[in-house]
Amino acid sequence: MQKEITIYDIAAKLNISAATVSRGLKDHPRVSKATKKLIVKTADEMGYRSNSFASNLRKKQSNVIGVIVPRLNSNFMADVLAGIEKVVNNNNYNLFISQSLETMKKEASNAKAMLNNRVDGLLVSVAYDTTSFDHFEPFIKRNIPVIFFDRVFDHAMCPQIYIDNYKAAFDITNHLIKQGCKKIVHIGGNQLRNVYSERFQGYKKALEENHIEFDNSLVIINDLTSEAGAEAAGEILKMDPLPDGLFVANDICAVGCMQALKKEGINIPDDIAVAGFNNDPTATVIEPPLTTVNYKGHEMGEAAAKLMINYLLDKQDLQQTHGLILRSELIIRESSLRDKSKQ
Amino acid sequence: MQKEITIYDIAAKLNISAATVSRGLKDHPRVSKATKKLIVKTADEMGYRSNSFASNLRKKQSNVIGVIVPRLNSNFMADVLAGIEKVVNNNNYNLFISQSLETMKKEASNAKAMLNNRVDGLLVSVAYDTTSFDHFEPFIKRNIPVIFFDRVFDHAMCPQIYIDNYKAAFDITNHLIKQGCKKIVHIGGNQLRNVYSERFQGYKKALEENHIEFDNSLVIINDLTSEAGAEAAGEILKMDPLPDGLFVANDICAVGCMQALKKEGINIPDDIAVAGFNNDPTATVIEPPLTTVNYKGHEMGEAAAKLMINYLLDKQDLQQTHGLILRSELIIRESSLRDKSKQ
Repeated sequence: MQKEITIYDIAAKLNISAATVSRGLKDHPRVSKATKKLIVKTADEMGYRSNSFASNLRKKQSNVIGVIVPRLNSNFMADVLAGIEKVVNNNNYNLFISQSLETMKKEASNAKAMLNNRVDGLLVSVAYDTTSFDHFEPFIKRNIPVIFFDRVFDHAMCPQIYIDNYKAAFDITNHLIKQGCKKIVHIGGNQLRNVYSERFQGYKKALEENHIEFDNSLVIINDLTSEAGAEAAGEILKMDPLPDGLFVANDICAVGCMQALKKEGINIPDDIAVAGFNNDPTATVIEPPLTTVNYKGHEMGEAAAKLMINYLLDKQDLQQTHGLILRSELIIRESSLRDKSKQ
Repeated sequence: MQKEITIYDIAAKLNISAATVSRGLKDHPRVSKATKKLIVKTADEMGYRSNSFASNLRKKQSNVIGVIVPRLNSNFMADVLAGIEKVVNNNNYNLFISQSLETMKKEASNAKAMLNNRVDGLLVSVAYDTTSFDHFEPFIKRNIPVIFFDRVFDHAMCPQIYIDNYKAAFDITNHLIKQGCKKIVHIGGNQLRNVYSERFQGYKKALEENHIEFDNSLVIINDLTSEAGAEAAGEILKMDPLPDGLFVANDICAVGCMQALKKEGINIPDDIAVAGFNNDPTATVIEPPLTTVNYKGHEMGEAAAKLMINYLLDKQDLQQTHGLILRSELIIRESSLRDKSKQ
């Protein structure tokens, strides 16, 4: 195994002082351009690596940002992570990434590992069942910034980045009503999470504004998987009379439900008009293509990372930004577009 | 900001020696169970955090494994990362994750950052255009293990984990031939990458074994995006006579191509039987559902991480495992299943 190369080795080889080598590597103005070039070239050839690890320890910063997401293998989260990585990497920070696998218990253990490894900041989208902030308190106590994105937790010290789920759900439900739907089923997720409770509230508000009475028996709460969508289709088919509209809180579940409904001979959109949420790749592949809300994961990741980096570099006051609401857009496709002449 | 709590603070509070606190926190047998319990409870209450950062520096290990992937936002890679994270996290290691965005230049800069941050090992799936191993040499020189997965680079010191792309492509092409296809188009990716060159070779071998002459004008090489698939459909429609089979090196491109062919009135599988690769979620949503190769990303991630962890914990000889070939399976769906009576 190669011995670690030091600035003294480089100095000896070039027959100059270690101080000059150190200055040259740090691009100090007192070292001439030619000497700098020679120092950097020699350092590279000898396999020198800057000791960011030890120097970070001295500076009491790690240049590492921690990220905890519910699951790595979700289309949306993969987009968010790609956006975060791009910004973080361009700013010479590194990313620790872990997944809570949707449980608060693993989220807490991930947070502890991040703390022990001295992350400079933490970006979190909370797990399905997270009910407490306790595991994030140690960060707040140490002035380590915690920023929530998408699935947020309300805390005065923690900025939140999300889309207006309430408005998006209102708009998409309103669209179904404008297409003639009068009995609209909603399939939603755990109401502990802002993203799902706000989509549910937006659905209710649209019914109210259109003078359609809210009926709790039309609301199905499940874990929003494809399988849960197929199961929900079974429940929907038992409703009498059949509903004529369906708004599902994510596309995976909406597509699973559509496939099961189609198998039973239901015509979409004529019998039941369907809308989802997220604009997953499957939304454009299912027939008919799925009306949905385009939710820009990459941009959300970039925004969260930029807020963090700006805080770490400029020590901006994080409390000034409490919430950052990103734009989303309704994408209307054939799954909800009815031929008006048939109605 | 809270002052960092030390073992001396805990010792003062409990009126015991710092050595006892240190031993208690390390679960040393000389400290009684009751005292250990009290020490851990007090440490938690006071907000003590173990200094893994500094202790890792002393041990000259970071307990961090670096991962470089082409893109974070790919279904397959997200599955792989989820598998890696699970194993790494269960073994109390942390993950640095970065993406090369498919260029060797960024891959090299990512590798340098990983090296400077003292990762204990590196897991890599190489970028689209990587032609040199130079940026990984510094790891080899320092005995830092580098393991390649999926898109591998041939190097005596680096184990490789992949599926038998050659055999999977042979099997799927053979299946198309058994369904009656005689003129089969292949859409493939950059032939620098093992995954794409082997799929191409497997396709050629199946033709040869079935006495079908290889025709280079039936091979389309592109970047395997959905848009490239739609473009390829245009080329296919110009072929005279039309081909009767199509094997695409990934599902995203296969689905994009199918959608474009269907728009032009091509019946799948009767006019053209289609097969993809990866078993992406869209493969079950497209109509007709797509025949493909099931490629277990999560398992590949777990296998790569386990190999790395075993090496780091036991200093197993990495050279003993040069290649680890994972199982893949042909999944036959309607896109390639022809009604024999019609032929």
